[in-house]
Amino acid sequence: MKNLLFFLLFSVSALGQSQDSIFIKKIYDETLLNGESYQNLRYLCKNVGPRLSGSLGAQKAVDYTKKLMESYGFDKVFLQDVMVPHWERGAKEEAYFLDNGKKYKVNIAALGGSVATSKAGLMAEIVEFQNFKELKEAGVEKVKGKIVFFNRPMDPTKINTFEAYGGAVDQRGGGASQAAQYGAVGVIVRSMNLREDEYPHTGSMRYSGGGMIPAAAISTKSANDLSKSLKNNPKLKFYFKQNCETLADAPSHNVIGEIVGSEKPDEIIVVGGHLDSWDLAEGAHDDGTGCMQSIEVLRILKALGYKPKRTIRAVMFMNEENGLKGGTTYADVAVQKKEKHVYAIESDSGGFTPRGFGVVGNDSQISKLTSFKALLSPYGLHEIGKGSGGADIGPLAKTGTVVIGFKPDSQRYFDYHHASNDTFETVNKRELDLGAGSMASLVYLLDNLN
Amino acid sequence: MKNLLFFLLFSVSALGQSQDSIFIKKIYDETLLNGESYQNLRYLCKNVGPRLSGSLGAQKAVDYTKKLMESYGFDKVFLQDVMVPHWERGAKEEAYFLDNGKKYKVNIAALGGSVATSKAGLMAEIVEFQNFKELKEAGVEKVKGKIVFFNRPMDPTKINTFEAYGGAVDQRGGGASQAAQYGAVGVIVRSMNLREDEYPHTGSMRYSGGGMIPAAAISTKSANDLSKSLKNNPKLKFYFKQNCETLADAPSHNVIGEIVGSEKPDEIIVVGGHLDSWDLAEGAHDDGTGCMQSIEVLRILKALGYKPKRTIRAVMFMNEENGLKGGTTYADVAVQKKEKHVYAIESDSGGFTPRGFGVVGNDSQISKLTSFKALLSPYGLHEIGKGSGGADIGPLAKTGTVVIGFKPDSQRYFDYHHASNDTFETVNKRELDLGAGSMASLVYLLDNLN
Repeated sequence: MKNLLFFLLFSVSALGQSQDSIFIKKIYDETLLNGESYQNLRYLCKNVGPRLSGSLGAQKAVDYTKKLMESYGFDKVFLQDVMVPHWERGAKEEAYFLDNGKKYKVNIAALGGSVATSKAGLMAEIVEFQNFKELKEAGVEKVKGKIVFFNRPMDPTKINTFEAYGGAVDQRGGGASQAAQYGAVGVIVRSMNLREDEYPHTGSMRYSGGGMIPAAAISTKSANDLSKSLKNNPKLKFYFKQNCETLADAPSHNVIGEIVGSEKPDEIIVVGGHLDSWDLAEGAHDDGTGCMQSIEVLRILKALGYKPKRTIRAVMFMNEENGLKGGTTYADVAVQKKEKHVYAIESDSGGFTPRGFGVVGNDSQISKLTSFKALLSPYGLHEIGKGSGGADIGPLAKTGTVVIGFKPDSQRYFDYHHASNDTFETVNKRELDLGAGSMASLVYLLDNLN
Repeated sequence: MKNLLFFLLFSVSALGQSQDSIFIKKIYDETLLNGESYQNLRYLCKNVGPRLSGSLGAQKAVDYTKKLMESYGFDKVFLQDVMVPHWERGAKEEAYFLDNGKKYKVNIAALGGSVATSKAGLMAEIVEFQNFKELKEAGVEKVKGKIVFFNRPMDPTKINTFEAYGGAVDQRGGGASQAAQYGAVGVIVRSMNLREDEYPHTGSMRYSGGGMIPAAAISTKSANDLSKSLKNNPKLKFYFKQNCETLADAPSHNVIGEIVGSEKPDEIIVVGGHLDSWDLAEGAHDDGTGCMQSIEVLRILKALGYKPKRTIRAVMFMNEENGLKGGTTYADVAVQKKEKHVYAIESDSGGFTPRGFGVVGNDSQISKLTSFKALLSPYGLHEIGKGSGGADIGPLAKTGTVVIGFKPDSQRYFDYHHASNDTFETVNKRELDLGAGSMASLVYLLDNLN
């Protein structure tokens, strides 16, 4: 009897697995054969382009994605009001260093949130540090009146490049305020890039006391050149001029499309990316791919005639790059409206070949996800387990939602991140489609959990 | 007592695992920090360039890699004589179709081994088929005097693109002889490429009876255009002209470097790639990356002061693309000299982010490899199991060697394969380094098996 019961249970479970497996195959087939995320991404990159919060580009991106989701006939498509910071770069930066009378041009880009230099620019001696400890040890005596140059590279021995990013990005985020404490007049930060090349990579910084001094990213090639020259001539002068400014907060929107659940419409599964990008590039991998994949998830499910039990929402979050107002507003509204968000998935690590999902949750929640491994590993999704979700869905996690980050291969991401070479051409259609298929498969499996 | 024994065995095993894990980390650190395969590949692509068997480029590649391995101070570096086929493309092909008096240019490239057209070129009606079955059903009546156009695309729903290649490449390899049987005067084959673009992808074909008719690959974009026009006008004329010829076989070489084993010098572990490439491109992913990774494996082990128990050989095989004479000669010589090749690893699937290894062997041999999973999965190597080895090491398999194929991510490979865009710029340094680290780690683990 026990054996029979076991057999029956096993058979039911195997049948379920097999049906799931067949449906997941249909999902991947649909996106690989008829996927539209690539052509939609082309439009976002080439016809909308850069879309920093508060810019005309951001507004165009809101309009475009709203229309796009309406064209797919999702059950509801709507905007959610969000007030966002509005920072503008202004005219392109100039920078060089003077070494023994000779001028060496370097490539910089103001960090997002930075103040400008004076109109004439800023010229001063420059002093190099690897980290805040070295800065502190040098102190006011060696720093006052100078520009501080933070030049610690991302650690190339980290296999996951996001770890390398995490180990270096404090220089960008907090370097200016740290240096200002010791009387520095400006800050130049090595770009968050594992390659040596000519592209400065911008990104957000914040002032937290100590005076607001201008801060810029320098390309890794220029950083290496500068560092080399400084070794021979520690007295060389560095010049930079930037023209950025922070304007009044601006009204903007999250863009939301949904398919209403057939059995548990009040339980929501979110799949999303962020719609804003830095101003320097088309924002292909950061995060046009995540947005277009999220819309594609709903398109796939609809194309296959799948009626989800729960409500499935594609959310284009605004302002991930420099404020996270979209993510925080979305969670606030969810609390106000007493919406029950059971799962939220974010794609914000690039449109590269899928590797897995990282989950923020308790052991039982994580083990639910890892139980999908057998179904997902044929599609290259081996790395399913405890991990990080995503910046925009972080605020939802605080309300009890299980948040999940889509994890593509990370090797190429920081070649393009926040730099002018983050263009449509660097995205491979199959990799993008496979990511959308992976996310759609996970949404399907989560929707079918009890 | 039993428990104690278990504890001791477990401890010894855990200690071994831990030592292995530490050494593998050193291997990856060495290549990620000091890796030279990327700069070596740049030289091979930019200073040597295309290197089809029998060409001056191939000879330069032999010279370069011999000198490179000598510069690294490997214990032995030597050449192995190989006679290779010598086929030349000659002047660039021309092709167009005439539809209602209008001329539409198309991009073609003669297939390797094909005969030329007459000097005036070949103009005829063209008839499209998806496969040999359709050709056979059409028969002499509908084929005689015409050009046959094989236009079956690679199946995009295959997750591993090599499966999609396997499902389409019969058209390229055997299409000409199949079509000639029914009186066709030429063959045009859709490029083995999952994208739609303008690059024709060449590759080998063979005549096996039925008459030697000229055969060329057509770019996927041109194939789609042609197919569309044929639907409206089945009588349209296709013209192509190609100038290729097969010359007398030429002397060439495999290039071999080795570190002699300290305990079992007579047992050899091979790691290799193929040095020849098609003539259209720099042969970056096919297979410059595999060659440079193989050399890097020995460089890493030497840099770390590792003394292998067995002899480790890096082999640059000649003539994989159109004859496999390097691989067959290598295995023949091994038999003659009674060399014992225990394992052979080939990297010939591109320099992309590592996914795993495919093994050809019996169950016990495969399970030895899969036992390495725990040690290798932190480096993204999850797909270790039964698979395919590599063309060049195939002949060794017949002599009892366990052959293993390095398995990088396959999504982008056929964007570049055998086409003029297979250039150095499409290779990412970290992905290349991680591949070399993966291969070196496997060599280390195999070397330490009893």
